[in-house]
Amino acid sequence: MSSSDQTAANTQTDPLPNTPLVVFTPSGKRGRFAVGTPILTAARQLGVDLDSVCGGRGICSKCQIAPSYGEFSKFGVVSEATALSDWNSVEQRYKDKRGLLDGRRLGCQATVQGDIVIDVPPESQVHKQVVRKAATARTIIMDPATRLYFVEVEQPDMHEPTGDLERLARALRAQWQIDDIKADLSVLTKLQPVLRKGNWQVTVALYRDHTGAPARLLDIWPGLYEGGLYGLAIDLGSTTIAAHLCDLVTGEVLGSSGVMNPQIRFGEDLMSRVSYAMMNPGGDKDMTRVVREAINGLTATLSAEAGIAPDSIFEAVIVCNPVMHHLLLGIDPVELGQAPFALATSASLSLRATDLGLDTFSPRAQVYLLPCIAGHVGADAAAVALSEEPGKSEDLVLVVDVGTNAEILLGNKTRVLACSSPTGPAFEGAQISAGQRAAPGAIERVEIDPVTKEPRFRIIGTDLWSDEVGFDAAATASGITGICGSGIIEAVAEMRMAGILDGSGLIGSAEQTGTVRCIMEGRTHTYVIHDSTAEGGPLISVTQGDIRAIQLAKSALYAGARLLMDEMGVDKVDRVVLAGAFGAHISPKHAMVLGMIPDVPLDKVFSAGNAAGTGARIALCNTASRAEIEMVVGQITKVETAIEPKFQEHFVAANAIPHKTDPFPELAKIVTLPDNSFNTRGEGGSDDGGRRRRRRA
Amino acid sequence: MSSSDQTAANTQTDPLPNTPLVVFTPSGKRGRFAVGTPILTAARQLGVDLDSVCGGRGICSKCQIAPSYGEFSKFGVVSEATALSDWNSVEQRYKDKRGLLDGRRLGCQATVQGDIVIDVPPESQVHKQVVRKAATARTIIMDPATRLYFVEVEQPDMHEPTGDLERLARALRAQWQIDDIKADLSVLTKLQPVLRKGNWQVTVALYRDHTGAPARLLDIWPGLYEGGLYGLAIDLGSTTIAAHLCDLVTGEVLGSSGVMNPQIRFGEDLMSRVSYAMMNPGGDKDMTRVVREAINGLTATLSAEAGIAPDSIFEAVIVCNPVMHHLLLGIDPVELGQAPFALATSASLSLRATDLGLDTFSPRAQVYLLPCIAGHVGADAAAVALSEEPGKSEDLVLVVDVGTNAEILLGNKTRVLACSSPTGPAFEGAQISAGQRAAPGAIERVEIDPVTKEPRFRIIGTDLWSDEVGFDAAATASGITGICGSGIIEAVAEMRMAGILDGSGLIGSAEQTGTVRCIMEGRTHTYVIHDSTAEGGPLISVTQGDIRAIQLAKSALYAGARLLMDEMGVDKVDRVVLAGAFGAHISPKHAMVLGMIPDVPLDKVFSAGNAAGTGARIALCNTASRAEIEMVVGQITKVETAIEPKFQEHFVAANAIPHKTDPFPELAKIVTLPDNSFNTRGEGGSDDGGRRRRRRA
Repeated sequence: MSSSDQTAANTQTDPLPNTPLVVFTPSGKRGRFAVGTPILTAARQLGVDLDSVCGGRGICSKCQIAPSYGEFSKFGVVSEATALSDWNSVEQRYKDKRGLLDGRRLGCQATVQGDIVIDVPPESQVHKQVVRKAATARTIIMDPATRLYFVEVEQPDMHEPTGDLERLARALRAQWQIDDIKADLSVLTKLQPVLRKGNWQVTVALYRDHTGAPARLLDIWPGLYEGGLYGLAIDLGSTTIAAHLCDLVTGEVLGSSGVMNPQIRFGEDLMSRVSYAMMNPGGDKDMTRVVREAINGLTATLSAEAGIAPDSIFEAVIVCNPVMHHLLLGIDPVELGQAPFALATSASLSLRATDLGLDTFSPRAQVYLLPCIAGHVGADAAAVALSEEPGKSEDLVLVVDVGTNAEILLGNKTRVLACSSPTGPAFEGAQISAGQRAAPGAIERVEIDPVTKEPRFRIIGTDLWSDEVGFDAAATASGITGICGSGIIEAVAEMRMAGILDGSGLIGSAEQTGTVRCIMEGRTHTYVIHDSTAEGGPLISVTQGDIRAIQLAKSALYAGARLLMDEMGVDKVDRVVLAGAFGAHISPKHAMVLGMIPDVPLDKVFSAGNAAGTGARIALCNTASRAEIEMVVGQITKVETAIEPKFQEHFVAANAIPHKTDPFPELAKIVTLPDNSFNTRGEGGSDDGGRRRRRRA
Repeated sequence: MSSSDQTAANTQTDPLPNTPLVVFTPSGKRGRFAVGTPILTAARQLGVDLDSVCGGRGICSKCQIAPSYGEFSKFGVVSEATALSDWNSVEQRYKDKRGLLDGRRLGCQATVQGDIVIDVPPESQVHKQVVRKAATARTIIMDPATRLYFVEVEQPDMHEPTGDLERLARALRAQWQIDDIKADLSVLTKLQPVLRKGNWQVTVALYRDHTGAPARLLDIWPGLYEGGLYGLAIDLGSTTIAAHLCDLVTGEVLGSSGVMNPQIRFGEDLMSRVSYAMMNPGGDKDMTRVVREAINGLTATLSAEAGIAPDSIFEAVIVCNPVMHHLLLGIDPVELGQAPFALATSASLSLRATDLGLDTFSPRAQVYLLPCIAGHVGADAAAVALSEEPGKSEDLVLVVDVGTNAEILLGNKTRVLACSSPTGPAFEGAQISAGQRAAPGAIERVEIDPVTKEPRFRIIGTDLWSDEVGFDAAATASGITGICGSGIIEAVAEMRMAGILDGSGLIGSAEQTGTVRCIMEGRTHTYVIHDSTAEGGPLISVTQGDIRAIQLAKSALYAGARLLMDEMGVDKVDRVVLAGAFGAHISPKHAMVLGMIPDVPLDKVFSAGNAAGTGARIALCNTASRAEIEMVVGQITKVETAIEPKFQEHFVAANAIPHKTDPFPELAKIVTLPDNSFNTRGEGGSDDGGRRRRRRA
């Protein structure tokens, strides 16, 4: 390139070569601007992500910037005096009134005077990144559907008789490039007094989603609104309803809470609830009512704990399985109880909260429900897909969201499959003799000494093991009350590894296992973990029935995963992600011993925490993600477990607890137990079949 | 053109030259179709307006056609045997079940066999023309926003797990080319049972308006829905609420009814109601409640009278003045009571009926409010503009909608002006000593003999004049109870023509007028029209106060018209249209004697009946008209009477009753009364000013 070419190129990229150069960090965007250009204006022209609610009027302080002074190789020495306009009275007033960190300026007040580097601190970015806790997970870019806009509205003029709403719309178009708004009657009724009280300066909350529909006017306040703008991400499970209260401006989670789903009294699992609706006319209406009440109650609790007004909650995103989805919407779920499991609607839904009877929110709050994938694979699975993104994975990942129903996703960049498997509530501590939900006092970790067969355990509420000094004192507050989902899984796996359990799932006798903790109960045996009956406390043990419940649950889970692997044509996966509130607590080792999940190196098993809840949070904080998941859901191949004969085959085959690499071969020698040694049949105690095989061994 | 050219041209217009030619009447559309093409298909391809709800399945009978047989110059002899397929079993079944006129065939069953002329009878046209009564008015083309669609929906398939709603949407796209639908929760809850009950054939009612928004699913029925689809056109006036119940398929008006606006108890005119809202906290809410209740009641009455279910009313169009508009919506009208008379919103509104508390309709009924023109010129004026179309007039037309407020439009093809004038309720019989609303027993016509000064009159309920044989008998049922709006106008004009009233509006004494019917009441005179006090009945007379009320009303009306004429730069108009329920009954001659309207030849004064109500009906039956009026309203120049100094000047100048061409010069001679002879001042009786001028005369 000749030197004249070089000059020409320079001219082209620097249309104002003699004006100051402004460089923004961290974006690195740069440009030349006339002396006197406000930094906010420069940022907007360059597409730099610098926030402003008041539109540059020096009142909202969202556009704070941190100019850099000193010596730059490019600029030479930059001093405050030469690079930016002087500190002005608007900035001083703001600093006096609310404080401003040293070194900060207001981007709408400071104007360009010379070459300068401007740092945009994270809190001044519109599209802040919210860091999620899970290490593997992507960050959330803040781009919520509901945002605040400060706007100056023209006063009415008799000679140009437009309505106040039309002038507000015009101002939003001119000042915020918002094409079209629509207002509910309930906002229209307050529009005129608010405009006048604010002296024609108002803040509006607009809901603009990914569909391109006109922006909905959610609320209006006189002047600059300095209250909050909140949203709820709700994971509506069959057993638990969990919600995160999020600040829609910062993305911060102000609080998380959960309540039991009150529908449990109508049926513990989904199919029981569908049956309840079929058998009891109006039963679905009762279930709809109680779940809506529970969400209202949860909202009230979360708001009170966070110290915010519930009516400053303007949005909720709800994820749930199809039966909960229909019951929440007030749709009789009867069709979901029988083939072909037809959903009333599978698409995502945008609704008014009041239409759902959710009346603790702002009266104009919006609710978004993620799309359902199929009749048995719901919006919760879609939320897991949004959070864990199997379709963006290079390696083949199996995502298992463990709850009363397990949502299972298998895939990579080329293809994603999904199914749902009816694990039942055993993994959540229900239908377990000493089971309880995860709460202080519940045994959550168990280890059994392979030689002595003695257990030790940990309860929720203390980090000490039961055989450590200080445990008794630490446990005094809650007591030792039962065993929760992760505890029962560990207990069963440890029992297997300690040789207390054979491969068919039968608990051995005291004689067979060599521990008096195996006691006779009816025709089967029970392993005692903790006995405080002498002090009037509970007997916490694992019964043969408990083992069977866990076997059914884990077989269902495993069979679902296998079915997807068959469909994909693979016999192993590269990576396993355990999701679900409960998935976060499962020990990967124990899950694998139990045969819950296909074998994979232990360091390839990850926990994603409550991935469905996280998916809801992503959809709440980032509208583009809604369009994304709506598209992704359409590309997922759905596999229906209920009609697939292979599912039954896998289910039956997975009933055993194979424990392929027995860490304790000496045990096998002592009691000469093959994989299915004590018994080969279901619930029953000793019988001929069992004995025959034992003899054969 | 050479003969080969001719052939080429023929080939071009006749792509299938060897196939039969089908000509449709009355459209004249024609085309060639393969043998075996159903007539309905041919009609659709040619864009012939042939209805079908069931989409050609032989069950709705909307596509009835009348084939012509016989000798045609073009076709030669066409016989039933050669031109159309044979009468088939579907047609026979339909005829047996519901009857089919002789000569009719079903367009979806009869197929083309040879050249044929097909007449589409009016009832088979989708876009039927509804003939309006007013001679000058345009017809209404039926093209309502709410229509029925019969549709066959694919059954659910486990392997392709879309929701029922999504499959319904897909069917509507394939079978009716409807892009996008959305469904309220209340329809979603019934979708699944209805689809199954109808064996996957259903009829849906869709609301598709002129905005391009997705079609809204209003209702769904199993199979072919044969119930009705109705709408209401409501003219919500300050004094009266009038409604037409319309069949949305045929356009037929099934019934019309009116009730008094119950807000009258809060204030007789609009400004009194605004004051009531300002003085009484929550007063606007009370007024909102009662007007909504009144509309609900009126709906119930109309439905009962027509024998239809109120929940088959799916739409309402409401027109009203700005104060009623705000009160209906639940918006405090306080801003409309003071300059600059800012509307909360001036644009048209599409709302859910339930949001307006209109709960007698279908729970998903839509309400459309026409746009307001300005703070004092409402959706009722817009409706008059839609009905009377001043903007399409070749000559300069003055449209006056006479009510408690008069809406006045002046214009032609080049420009339209509008204003509103506060005439008060005198023209409706209110604030008149013997005034009453137009009801049986009310005097509606008055004549006064210019020589004897004796009156004769007619009452509502009989066509006989009071001096005709049989009147007394005919009047027995109702009695003679008072005088309504049109009666008082005629009475005042007749009094002026008979010389009982001078040009300033003063009633003369018995001596001055030569009739004992002029009696002294306090310091002024009263003219007795009918005295039945001897029989315990009322004394119906015109007092000086009545004259003043009429003078104020007619001055306001005239001043408004003059103001528009000034703005237009004209001093005469070509044509006057009197609209409003009351406008229909005003005698043009008397209106002109009184000086209510500018002078124009009597044969250039027309009555448009309730033009606002008709505008509402047009908007109800034809969606395109909504887009039209929204555009037209934006082009109308609004003139604000309240701030225009010239309005006051015109108002004062119009106070007199000039009676320029006195038909009774002998009277003037007898009493030597110039135009303002008895008095020159307001309410007061004789005073010096009056006497001075009388002496001067």
